[in-house]
Amino acid sequence: MADNEIWLDTLITATPQEGRELAMKMARKTIAAIQRDPEVRKKLRDDYAEDTAQLISSANVVALEFQTVAKANNYWK
Amino acid sequence: MADNEIWLDTLITATPQEGRELAMKMARKTIAAIQRDPEVRKKLRDDYAEDTAQLISSANVVALEFQTVAKANNYWK
Amino acid sequence: MADNEIWLDTLITATPQEGRELAMKMARKTIAAIQRDPEVRKKLRDDYAEDTAQLISSANVVALEFQTVAKANNYWK
Amino acid sequence: MADNEIWLDTLITATPQEGRELAMKMARKTIAAIQRDPEVRKKLRDDYAEDTAQLISSANVVALEFQTVAKANNYWK
Amino acid sequence: MADNEIWLDTLITATPQEGRELAMKMARKTIAAIQRDPEVRKKLRDDYAEDTAQLISSANVVALEFQTVAKANNYWK
Amino acid sequence: MADNEIWLDTLITATPQEGRELAMKMARKTIAAIQRDPEVRKKLRDDYAEDTAQLISSANVVALEFQTVAKANNYWK
Repeated sequence: MADNEIWLDTLITATPQEGRELAMKMARKTIAAIQRDPEVRKKLRDDYAEDTAQLISSANVVALEFQTVAKANNYWK
Repeated sequence: MADNEIWLDTLITATPQEGRELAMKMARKTIAAIQRDPEVRKKLRDDYAEDTAQLISSANVVALEFQTVAKANNYWK
Repeated sequence: MADNEIWLDTLITATPQEGRELAMKMARKTIAAIQRDPEVRKKLRDDYAEDTAQLISSANVVALEFQTVAKANNYWK
Repeated sequence: MADNEIWLDTLITATPQEGRELAMKMARKTIAAIQRDPEVRKKLRDDYAEDTAQLISSANVVALEFQTVAKANNYWK
Repeated sequence: MADNEIWLDTLITATPQEGRELAMKMARKTIAAIQRDPEVRKKLRDDYAEDTAQLISSANVVALEFQTVAKANNYWK
Repeated sequence: MADNEIWLDTLITATPQEGRELAMKMARKTIAAIQRDPEVRKKLRDDYAEDTAQLISSANVVALEFQTVAKANNYWK
């Protein structure tokens, strides 16, 4: 079952950009955990991708997740 | 009584993914502490799971809770 | 007077769960400091407890307060 | 002039509760810096004190300011 | 050109209050970077300065920027 | 493909102001990753640049991203 899928083994990534991708995945996975029906999610996605307020709110979530990922990676220094 | 249920003994989890699950539980438990009627919560849940703005706001809360959990676990390093 | 009530002597709590309770109290006390009329607050509470967007926003505040409480307690480690 | 008033000499407070009061003051002072007309602020205040969504948003700001104050005071430990 | 203006040489300020002013400037400069037309900004400002929800959101941004400034200054200790 | 473009090699910048620019780029890139059609983004941008609520929300995202960049750079001290 998708519910049991292991998708977050580690917060460590090779590069900052991979860290961004992980942050985006983390945000997406939260949404998917709340709204489990992929068909509903797909329909919702079509809506919010044209709604700037929601795009900006999504970027807020990604910024927060990236704070965590960046710290875990000691800012790739 | 549910109010007295001990559900948060520790912030330590074995893996990052379990940390995500704990972060989601923390967010849910806050909602449950404010709206104590499970029937009302169930009805509300049906609404917000199809409202992208609210899904994104929920993801913002989870991202914040996960910051705390991740730090408590020293990022599972 | 309630305004002078001392309700926050320390950020230290015995357990993470008591830390959650403190975080919720901190959020409530801010609201009470802005809207001082308990009758108005009670009426408002009836509204927002059935409004998922506001429940989620409340959970965002609690998540932030808990970040502070958890750090003060060194994550109860 | 009020604009030149020194109101923030230090982030250090004697107790956590005084830290809460400072956090609330910081939030209020930001609003006052943007909307400088006290008459307008007074009128606006009457509105938002009965609007739960805005009360909760205010509590979000106070939670953030308190994070800073608490850290400055090393959590009053 | 204004776009090339250097306005942020350092995060260090002499006092906490100057740190607040810098935090407010940082927030304003972000808005100015997105909406580059000063005439449009002026008109928008007239609107939002009488809209409490937006004043509170602005205070949220300032609180976040101040977290960064305060940390950079080691809380002026 | 633009999707594979490497745009974030490092969080290190020479100056705080370049750090602001990076923070803004990070916010923009998140939006672009969600709404991949540049024509749609351009149209959306025209809308939100005249909507103060959205400008302020954007500034919130930039403030969060800048927290990460500033920390990565040890506040350019």
